[in-house]
Amino acid sequence: MSKLRIVSLTIGLGALFADIGLSYAAGSNEPIQPLVAAKPRDVRLVELGKQLFFDPRLSKSGFISCNSCHNLSMGGSDNLKTSVGHNWHQGPINSPTVLNSSMNLAQFWDGRAPDLKAQAGGPIANPGEMAFTHELAVSVLQSIPGYVAEFKTAFGSDKVNIDEVTSAIAAFEETLVTPDSRFDKWLKGDKKALNKEELDGYTLFKDSGCTACHNGSAVGGNSYQKLGVVEPYKTTNTAQGRFAVTGIDADRFYFKVPTLRNVELTYPYFHDGEAATLKDAVNTMARIQLGKQFTDDENRKVVAFLKTLTGKQPSFKLPLLPPSSDSTPRPQPFDNPPK
Amino acid sequence: MSKLRIVSLTIGLGALFADIGLSYAAGSNEPIQPLVAAKPRDVRLVELGKQLFFDPRLSKSGFISCNSCHNLSMGGSDNLKTSVGHNWHQGPINSPTVLNSSMNLAQFWDGRAPDLKAQAGGPIANPGEMAFTHELAVSVLQSIPGYVAEFKTAFGSDKVNIDEVTSAIAAFEETLVTPDSRFDKWLKGDKKALNKEELDGYTLFKDSGCTACHNGSAVGGNSYQKLGVVEPYKTTNTAQGRFAVTGIDADRFYFKVPTLRNVELTYPYFHDGEAATLKDAVNTMARIQLGKQFTDDENRKVVAFLKTLTGKQPSFKLPLLPPSSDSTPRPQPFDNPPK
Repeated sequence: MSKLRIVSLTIGLGALFADIGLSYAAGSNEPIQPLVAAKPRDVRLVELGKQLFFDPRLSKSGFISCNSCHNLSMGGSDNLKTSVGHNWHQGPINSPTVLNSSMNLAQFWDGRAPDLKAQAGGPIANPGEMAFTHELAVSVLQSIPGYVAEFKTAFGSDKVNIDEVTSAIAAFEETLVTPDSRFDKWLKGDKKALNKEELDGYTLFKDSGCTACHNGSAVGGNSYQKLGVVEPYKTTNTAQGRFAVTGIDADRFYFKVPTLRNVELTYPYFHDGEAATLKDAVNTMARIQLGKQFTDDENRKVVAFLKTLTGKQPSFKLPLLPPSSDSTPRPQPFDNPPK
Repeated sequence: MSKLRIVSLTIGLGALFADIGLSYAAGSNEPIQPLVAAKPRDVRLVELGKQLFFDPRLSKSGFISCNSCHNLSMGGSDNLKTSVGHNWHQGPINSPTVLNSSMNLAQFWDGRAPDLKAQAGGPIANPGEMAFTHELAVSVLQSIPGYVAEFKTAFGSDKVNIDEVTSAIAAFEETLVTPDSRFDKWLKGDKKALNKEELDGYTLFKDSGCTACHNGSAVGGNSYQKLGVVEPYKTTNTAQGRFAVTGIDADRFYFKVPTLRNVELTYPYFHDGEAATLKDAVNTMARIQLGKQFTDDENRKVVAFLKTLTGKQPSFKLPLLPPSSDSTPRPQPFDNPPK
């Protein structure tokens, strides 16, 4: 309930700013705040988590890693409508970006994981994603001397457990914050950081009510909202949103509002990935959430503003993974032996 | 024919060194030469090639990149018996490492591509690998403004073609050389770089005849040899080696000798990936190629030597890929629309 109150308050403030003509005023009263770069808690833990994030040996096949669907070369997403999983399983929902995901009020579109650590265990054991088990993933890591040494350094024990695995992955993911977008520079006072079209787009974004849901430093991620407030959203996707977690009928089609940070990179859009372009996504959102029809000119301005939200992408060396040992359980990509 | 003569000569020299007790003498007379670090021809071309190597948009699905099967976090291989391709197709043969592949006399196990540039086009268009076409790959790249600018810088034209794509990938791959292994340090005169067990292993490696095929700076990759010289190799894999290229019956089961550089990282072994460990691979090779049965102690020594061939792995920042535009053809991972 307190979340809902905060959202209502933000809507109220947004409307107020629009009323008194503060749309262009950069400062602490904006509904969007600048991103603050992550300060890694523990560098060795982050390095371990980075390796695990890139390691396909956390999957049954030895072929799928966290980075397969949250590709850090591509905005922390896979740029597919829905993801490819084990045995080419067609995923049920669009993979959200891992960038700035530490700022989400919860993880997954339906918020079923309270935090990144809880999320990280999900895909490993999901038969349609990495199709492994936590026990097997741990037994693989335990058999790799390079990993055992790193876990010992990070956690003080020779014995690897899944809690440590997901903690390390979450610690890495917490570093995936993308500050210094052009919009952040503008927010911090650099008035030349945005051009007129982009500023007009931001005004439209606020005045149209987009900031009711897309606000805060992540420009979203901090509330659940109904998809299709004014007009139902038509989709063949069967996801029911929060209802799957709460079982409450009123929660049907409530989804976590996605962050719009780096939205230029995280196409396609919506939980079903059915909006291929920002143009499509903006028009659909305006229509079904706000009952508005943007002109082509207005749409172009809003899209121009959204592209100013692309921040500094995580920059790090491709991790090298410690080799398996003779006793490491081998991946099982195929049910039948190779012919 | 000249290749075969060189191999014969090397066998002769190896036997000579063993006879006159020079096994431990580091120097230019060794059958293995130190790796020389790559000097990139054109840094911008290499950077473009790196992006393309990591870009899954060169596949029909948008899910498979060169790095999927030649994973630079894992010795330039996928560490699977045979690879996973489009629609989870089970690959027919083990993915060879891309590390030091510029030193191979030709590419693929059967040498059907004369060089890296010719190789790079293969998987893109192979229905069981990336399942795309060269035309579609080019049309995707042509639609991405970030790529068009880079191709223009590298090749001087706004018009992308497949020849440029494979040239750039090959230019990147040529940089994937792994110098400074402990064995290289020993070859260059650092007598403490190897311990006694490893040196004993190297002597066994030479005296047993392994260097007849595994020689040169890549410790292999420079000849085709019959698998199963003394005893037939038993496998359910149907690959026929050079025969597939030449159609000559005598070429059946002749394969390109793989490099042993970084062999610690490139498990499993052989064209069918059926040797899970170096121990297995060494014993099988000794038996079927040389008619030898290593004792456990001898095997351990040879394996210890082989692990000294792990060099400095390529170290670079994970590339960031330019985003698709509204006109970029979208990936088609699934034949049916998402449910």
